[in-house]
Amino acid sequence: MERLRLYDYAASANCYKVRLLLATLGRAYERVAVDIFGGETLTDAFYTKNPARSTPVLEVGEGAYLQESNAILAYLAEGSALLPEGAFDRAHVLKWLIIEQTDVIPTMGGLRFRILTGRLAPDDPESRRRHEGAKATLRMLDAHLEGRDFFVRDRYSIADVALYGYVHVAGEGGVDMQPYRRVEGWLRRVEDQPGFMNDLEPYPENARPGAGRSTYD
Amino acid sequence: MERLRLYDYAASANCYKVRLLLATLGRAYERVAVDIFGGETLTDAFYTKNPARSTPVLEVGEGAYLQESNAILAYLAEGSALLPEGAFDRAHVLKWLIIEQTDVIPTMGGLRFRILTGRLAPDDPESRRRHEGAKATLRMLDAHLEGRDFFVRDRYSIADVALYGYVHVAGEGGVDMQPYRRVEGWLRRVEDQPGFMNDLEPYPENARPGAGRSTYD
Repeated sequence: MERLRLYDYAASANCYKVRLLLATLGRAYERVAVDIFGGETLTDAFYTKNPARSTPVLEVGEGAYLQESNAILAYLAEGSALLPEGAFDRAHVLKWLIIEQTDVIPTMGGLRFRILTGRLAPDDPESRRRHEGAKATLRMLDAHLEGRDFFVRDRYSIADVALYGYVHVAGEGGVDMQPYRRVEGWLRRVEDQPGFMNDLEPYPENARPGAGRSTYD
Repeated sequence: MERLRLYDYAASANCYKVRLLLATLGRAYERVAVDIFGGETLTDAFYTKNPARSTPVLEVGEGAYLQESNAILAYLAEGSALLPEGAFDRAHVLKWLIIEQTDVIPTMGGLRFRILTGRLAPDDPESRRRHEGAKATLRMLDAHLEGRDFFVRDRYSIADVALYGYVHVAGEGGVDMQPYRRVEGWLRRVEDQPGFMNDLEPYPENARPGAGRSTYD
């Protein structure tokens, strides 16, 4: 197997998703910390790894880079039980990988980041818009889980790994998770999987606006 | 091969992407028109096909539904030259499928929809925000195309099909495409591919706000 190097931010759930999958698969890798708010994604050296200046980035072998957390999950899960073999099931996994980025991240993920780092007050119209989006997305996820243990074909897959990332901490952005009982049950099932671990860290002090230098300023 | 039925909206570039791929692959399918602004995605019958109430939806055989345009592209392209075989290249295709949904659709796609249907004036702050996002995304796409004919491994793939959808009509939302010469060259190369066709229709009169009944009201 190729040597893996993960350019990684400890407080990013997009990065944590990859760490969780690597732990589940038992894959060894070198972890290279990238201080997003210390300006480390703004360097020319980082641009060559990822022109979009986001984390995580996976380096496979020497100098072959892969960006986008969910593309990294799909790459790593290839040939494992966490990515189904059939084309129709695989496409359903891909569907959830896309929905996680379009519907989970901008709503509950973005809300939590802005609340916890002091970028938005909870009663800001922008917070309320993201909060409403979070509730609509959670209703959709909860409805899908009716009669299902996991998101695709009742088997744990990278669709679950991806969705777990920001859904399991949505409450920290002020979203009341109590109405979404099926989502809560599914979170516990993910946590019961062999190899599960959670090392997502809180946002550090320099993530507050004006304290650092990043693509978020 | 299974019978394919596409629940489809003629003026959606997300739907057009699927029609373009089907034409390129020479696959026969039944096309079922869904009048988004006539309320046809709001019915219980449509909910069983797609709880997110978006188009396109692909029906494979009888009653097996697949949602999300780019998941549909990946499903249909499986085993064809438009989806590479190697896991690393496949993951790069997937990366662009995700970026198309997170960075192209909300910027130039959403801007064009709102301008053309009269939802936003060009000088509205929301238009300006989307316009700035469109320019940043186009700069990123243009930089990636330096020295490349297509987005992944210099071979036409569903990454190009997906990106073509809303990029080729970004100008209709007021985005000046002139600075993005590599993107312009790539658009022409996509149009030169065997099987290329373009049947994207203008938004109809009932797409204007208040004229119809849809998830956009």
